[in-house]
Amino acid sequence: MAKKTVTVETSMEKGFKLVSQLGNHTVYVDQPTANGGTDAGPNPLQYFLLSLGGCISAISRIAAKQKKIPLRALKLTIRGELDTDVLMGINQENRAGFGAIEVTAEIDADLTDEEKSDFLAEVDRRCPISDNIERATSVSFRLAEQPMSVNLS
Amino acid sequence: MAKKTVTVETSMEKGFKLVSQLGNHTVYVDQPTANGGTDAGPNPLQYFLLSLGGCISAISRIAAKQKKIPLRALKLTIRGELDTDVLMGINQENRAGFGAIEVTAEIDADLTDEEKSDFLAEVDRRCPISDNIERATSVSFRLAEQPMSVNLS
Repeated sequence: MAKKTVTVETSMEKGFKLVSQLGNHTVYVDQPTANGGTDAGPNPLQYFLLSLGGCISAISRIAAKQKKIPLRALKLTIRGELDTDVLMGINQENRAGFGAIEVTAEIDADLTDEEKSDFLAEVDRRCPISDNIERATSVSFRLAEQPMSVNLS
Repeated sequence: MAKKTVTVETSMEKGFKLVSQLGNHTVYVDQPTANGGTDAGPNPLQYFLLSLGGCISAISRIAAKQKKIPLRALKLTIRGELDTDVLMGINQENRAGFGAIEVTAEIDADLTDEEKSDFLAEVDRRCPISDNIERATSVSFRLAEQPMSVNLS
């Protein structure tokens, strides 16, 4: 077993804007102006689907190299639909998140369609983000002992 | 029901580098140089945990406004651990993704610890990303009909 721990820290700024330092990269999360944000960055739902696409692509690179398959291009379209009434607290009947996620893949490699589908199935099995979406994972919350003293309101 | 569809397109570039246009924002996914990437952006696991932190923060803003609670600051630390042998294809016994995800919250608001915990529990229930992590969600793959002709290898 090769244990790897990933830690991400986020700090809320004004309104929906949030900043996070991910390694060498300062990234922002926000909402578009139409939703009351300042559009300083993509929204959380976009980042979530991006993480799945990024993971599928990275594992595709690793698996293709292991199988000595030249992977000339990989373009993914990741799509999900949700009921925003749940996050607004208006409705509790539906689930809050995406009901299902669909990935459409354009693969440029010397593989038949069947081989491409088998390849994607293996990548999906090995992809951490696929696993965390397809199988239930606990999310636990705890309060930090030292509240922040900085006032960002 | 207020249906919202979110679509993200990703294009693999050289190696682990990937680009995506999310609304007005061009974002990159990559791996650090130590893992064979060019560090053009955060990795997929970081974006995944970021999406959870961003969602918890955004729903906190919405819920605090609805409850007329001044939310002066919210800082989250999101942590997960996984076995990278699974994504490498070396091990199939463990799950590929994070075994559990822990969120530590520093909340600056005029609430008792119990009220803060209740607030976080409600936010978690309403947060789409929490829901997609805590409950199983199907991810389906299909091949695009028109393969790409651009050669990015």
